[in-house]
Amino acid sequence: MPVNLNPPVAAELHPVAGVRLGVTEAGIRKANRRDLTLIELAAGSRVAGVFTQNRFCAAPVQMCRQHLTGNDIRALVINTGIANAGTGEMGLAASKQSCQAVARILDIRADQVLPFSTGVILEPLPVDRLIAGLPGAQSALKADGWYDAAHAIMTTDTVAKAASKQVTIAGQPVTITGIAKGAGMIKPNMATMLGFVATDAIVAQPMLERLVKEVADESFNCVTVDGDTSTNDSFILIATGKGRARFETIDTTGWNEFKLAVIEVARTLAQAIARDGEGATKFIEIAVAGARSKDEAKAVGYTIAHSPLVKTAFFASDPNLGRILGAIGNAWGNDAALRDLDVSKVKVWLGNGHNEVLVSENGGRAASYKEEDGAAAMKPAEITVRVDLGRGSAQGKVWTCDFSYDYVKINADYRS
Amino acid sequence: MPVNLNPPVAAELHPVAGVRLGVTEAGIRKANRRDLTLIELAAGSRVAGVFTQNRFCAAPVQMCRQHLTGNDIRALVINTGIANAGTGEMGLAASKQSCQAVARILDIRADQVLPFSTGVILEPLPVDRLIAGLPGAQSALKADGWYDAAHAIMTTDTVAKAASKQVTIAGQPVTITGIAKGAGMIKPNMATMLGFVATDAIVAQPMLERLVKEVADESFNCVTVDGDTSTNDSFILIATGKGRARFETIDTTGWNEFKLAVIEVARTLAQAIARDGEGATKFIEIAVAGARSKDEAKAVGYTIAHSPLVKTAFFASDPNLGRILGAIGNAWGNDAALRDLDVSKVKVWLGNGHNEVLVSENGGRAASYKEEDGAAAMKPAEITVRVDLGRGSAQGKVWTCDFSYDYVKINADYRS
Repeated sequence: MPVNLNPPVAAELHPVAGVRLGVTEAGIRKANRRDLTLIELAAGSRVAGVFTQNRFCAAPVQMCRQHLTGNDIRALVINTGIANAGTGEMGLAASKQSCQAVARILDIRADQVLPFSTGVILEPLPVDRLIAGLPGAQSALKADGWYDAAHAIMTTDTVAKAASKQVTIAGQPVTITGIAKGAGMIKPNMATMLGFVATDAIVAQPMLERLVKEVADESFNCVTVDGDTSTNDSFILIATGKGRARFETIDTTGWNEFKLAVIEVARTLAQAIARDGEGATKFIEIAVAGARSKDEAKAVGYTIAHSPLVKTAFFASDPNLGRILGAIGNAWGNDAALRDLDVSKVKVWLGNGHNEVLVSENGGRAASYKEEDGAAAMKPAEITVRVDLGRGSAQGKVWTCDFSYDYVKINADYRS
Repeated sequence: MPVNLNPPVAAELHPVAGVRLGVTEAGIRKANRRDLTLIELAAGSRVAGVFTQNRFCAAPVQMCRQHLTGNDIRALVINTGIANAGTGEMGLAASKQSCQAVARILDIRADQVLPFSTGVILEPLPVDRLIAGLPGAQSALKADGWYDAAHAIMTTDTVAKAASKQVTIAGQPVTITGIAKGAGMIKPNMATMLGFVATDAIVAQPMLERLVKEVADESFNCVTVDGDTSTNDSFILIATGKGRARFETIDTTGWNEFKLAVIEVARTLAQAIARDGEGATKFIEIAVAGARSKDEAKAVGYTIAHSPLVKTAFFASDPNLGRILGAIGNAWGNDAALRDLDVSKVKVWLGNGHNEVLVSENGGRAASYKEEDGAAAMKPAEITVRVDLGRGSAQGKVWTCDFSYDYVKINADYRS
């Protein structure tokens, strides 16, 4: 059950000038599913991406990294069902063939195509079926295809994930629209499972490459479901340049405003992934402040977010504070700088927007803490754990979900 | 359901000359449970310990560290129900009072007592009840009290954990007997939740201090249930010196034989913890070879062992190899040296003692692999994942269990 996550409304997803999307049923792994998405970009579009840091990175990720060096991307092809990861040379060949087939039908070069795959790892990609599906996807290409594409890239997602925004920056209208997918094997490292955000703004390539990293760090890189960084994580930022807003340097008027707008779209998508985390019944924000560095803050956030004991306590709405403190005490395993953490300076609050309870200070339970207040704070579907480490001024956030019976069910059954 | 774990048989637990154990019901947290254990050591016993690296370490752990500097331990007092962790100054005071009370009834000094607590974190230790229970535990003291003590230190354990061994080393008989507890919040770092092993051998103090670390590294430090290092982990090695075998230096005849015998007892206890891991239906050994260092091997082992996706696949007996490869590809997050791991050199086998299947090589599925062979290898209750990283000659092992509905059930219900 996704947590406070509304399905996208087609009419609210603004087309981005220069982007057309088409989906089809290619039968990649199962019949009667839209599993193939083609995205066509207008000439002159600029594209930047960040990808998984998993050493077993998938063939399409390797191919994307190669093709992005050319700076002249005109199409994206995305299949679900098969991840084409852990498939060795054969997988690379399959990914290459997909690009070549897209190039043929769109009359572009194969190195102008970025391929993406998501689904089961280690199985060979049935590239013939993918290629046979391409004409169908091509004939479905349309500017308002974001809604369909958001659905066609889903795997274990229960709700499609899309976000869109129109703003006026320095007097010029800017459209930003994006889609994402992911629900399990989620602890993005540089990017999420799959995320695509496009804007019609004109953005210089070096700016776009800088932006994609900054946006990922403030959005997808704050999400974890189960701590398992996927082999296929990819986040792509597209600037078609078909609008009038133009950003050539970071000193351009409105650059920060533009960056915040892109971050907002990406955050909505990133949080949607945690809200739709496998088996999720709660959406948890872990906000860590008082750290000496952002890395330190995030290490504490992730250690809390990955603790199966904390996650099951959230599922039970149980203010089992000891598990949270235990996780904080273990965080030095993820960032050695925390080895000298003075726990007597750590403060922890539980709550949500409306009320917040100080639950721990001075190395133990807060003197003012009452169990019923903690229980009340754990009840809502959205919970914030706020931690002050009391040793610096850096901060960081992590979004996650709880750990329920359904997580086990989904992952014990996934391949069957 | 514990995996192939037989309850201890009282008659098989050899008394260790110089050790007497007594248990009682002190009503620390719930009534009608044996929850207080007193262990009395003969004068001249030598004791060494290793403790949790969690920054929120419990009051009794802090007290143990202090008292062990005195090198003159005569008693151990262990309560279950309340962990006395995250209890600040009040917790330290409670732990001190427990030691003082034991000192009074045994006519020794308070700094000759080691206190241990296990159970719920953050709750105050009802030290009055503990103290009131001590005379009962004292009157129950007996040399063959290991069986009762193994039961009295349990919390969420479903089976008591004990191991015992008598060997002749360099012509002298040596007895080694130990008990342990732990089923959740288990990823010992230097030691497990609680483990106590005693021998009647005469062991020089520096040798014993060296031995306790080596034994922990080969036993308790190879176990993980959920990756959550507890606040109370303690492993204590006692040499009463009441036997005739004597080890003064590492060159003493039989030292290695003695060390292996102690390791064997500790390993049996450590594996028992994984076999009785919360909700366990499978016992998994992850053996990693071909690493550049032991740390590297264990980082790969732990990354596999902590992946919720891998653990749920084990529960489902599903040879979902992609999840194992995905975890290996993420292990550099736990040991940066693995950042340059060449996945094309990695080999993975699944199996057990009787048959073993090569499942992955050359960055993908092994050419010879058949799904039905993988499925057959995943079926037994005991599974070995063998990994060769192909980059060195170091190796390491990790023992763990699977992740089932019952893990969630146990941990969502624990405090209620």
